[in-house]
Amino acid sequence: MGKTSRLTQQIAFIIEIDRLKQILRQTYITDQSRPENTAEHSWHIALMATVLMEYAPPGADLLRATKMLLIHDIVEIDAGDTFAFDEVGNQTKVEREEQAAERLFGLLPPDQNSELRSLWNEFEAQQTQTAQFAAALDRIQPLLLNQQNQGGTWRKFGIRRDRVIERMRPVAVGAPALWSMVEEAIEECVAAGYLDT
Amino acid sequence: MGKTSRLTQQIAFIIEIDRLKQILRQTYITDQSRPENTAEHSWHIALMATVLMEYAPPGADLLRATKMLLIHDIVEIDAGDTFAFDEVGNQTKVEREEQAAERLFGLLPPDQNSELRSLWNEFEAQQTQTAQFAAALDRIQPLLLNQQNQGGTWRKFGIRRDRVIERMRPVAVGAPALWSMVEEAIEECVAAGYLDT
Repeated sequence: MGKTSRLTQQIAFIIEIDRLKQILRQTYITDQSRPENTAEHSWHIALMATVLMEYAPPGADLLRATKMLLIHDIVEIDAGDTFAFDEVGNQTKVEREEQAAERLFGLLPPDQNSELRSLWNEFEAQQTQTAQFAAALDRIQPLLLNQQNQGGTWRKFGIRRDRVIERMRPVAVGAPALWSMVEEAIEECVAAGYLDT
Repeated sequence: MGKTSRLTQQIAFIIEIDRLKQILRQTYITDQSRPENTAEHSWHIALMATVLMEYAPPGADLLRATKMLLIHDIVEIDAGDTFAFDEVGNQTKVEREEQAAERLFGLLPPDQNSELRSLWNEFEAQQTQTAQFAAALDRIQPLLLNQQNQGGTWRKFGIRRDRVIERMRPVAVGAPALWSMVEEAIEECVAAGYLDT
C-alpha cells in the first residue's frame, strides 16, 4: 500500500508537468511558425548538455546538469514564463517561482521532492559549476534561435547589442570556452542587421 | 581551427534538431488543445526516467537511459512520426529511420556521431536493460495521456483493449514493477468507457 501510494504520487507529478507544454516563451522555433514552449525548450537544452559537455568547467557533472535542465523551468506551470527583458515581471519572479516549486515538487514522494527541489535550488543559486554550466546552455539556446530567426525577439522588443551581451554573461562563467562563439554570433547578428547597436 | 570546426559541427546539429518541435504525434497534450510534438514528448519521457528509476531493471543506467530518451526520436525530423497502429507505415519505418540517423548524427564530429548513433542503435535493438527501461517509459507516457484525454487516440482510431495491452508489452520487460499499474490504468479506461474491449 505504501508502494502504491508512492507510485500514485509519482504518476500525479508526471501528469501535472504535462502542462509545461502549454507555457509559451518569447522565442520562436526555427521555422518561425510559432513561439517555443518551455517543455520543448527544456528538451533542447538538456540534449545540448550532452553535445557541449566538453566545454563545461572541470567540476560539472553531466547527469546532474541534465536533470537540472529538465526540471529547472517546471515552476513556469504556476508562475508563467517571465521574459528576460521584462523588468517589472522579474521583480516578483523569485517569490512566484518559489511557491510554484513548493507545490509542484511537493506532488512527489518526500525523498524525490527533496532531490529535485535541491537541484532546482542549486540552479537558482548558481554557485556550483554544474549549475553554471546549465545556465550557460539556457542562455546560448535562445541566442541561436534568435540568430536563425533574423533577430526574432530582439527586433520585436527593440533589444540592443549591449543588453544581449549582458544577458549572455553566464556563458563566460559556466562555459568560458564558448564565450568567443557567443561574441562571434552576436557580431554576425549585428552585421546582418538582426541586432541593433 | 580544428576546434572551431568541431564546435561549428556541434552547433549545426543543435540548430538542426530544433525541427523536432515541428513533428506532431497522434497523442494530444493533456489540455487536449493540440497534438503533442516529438520534442516535448522526449522531454517528458527523459524526466520520467529520473522519477521512475527505482522501477528499472538492476543493470539499467540512468544517464544512458536519459540520453537515449532525449535522442531516440530525432530521426523523425526526416522520417516523420509513424503512428504505432499504422501497419503500412511501420513496414518502411526501419529503413527510413536508419537513413535519418545517418544524416542527423552525421552532422556531429565523428566521436559524437558514433556515441549517439550507438545509443540510438541500442534503443532500437532492445537488448540491454537500459534500452528496455527507456522503451517502457516511451510506452507508458502516451497511455497516461490517453487516459487523461478520455481515450484520445484510441477512440479516434477505434483501437481496442487487446491492442493496447500488446503495445504495452515492453513495460513488462523493461519495468516489470510497473506492469500492474499499466494493467490497472487500462482497466480503468475500459470501465470509464475510454477504451473498448
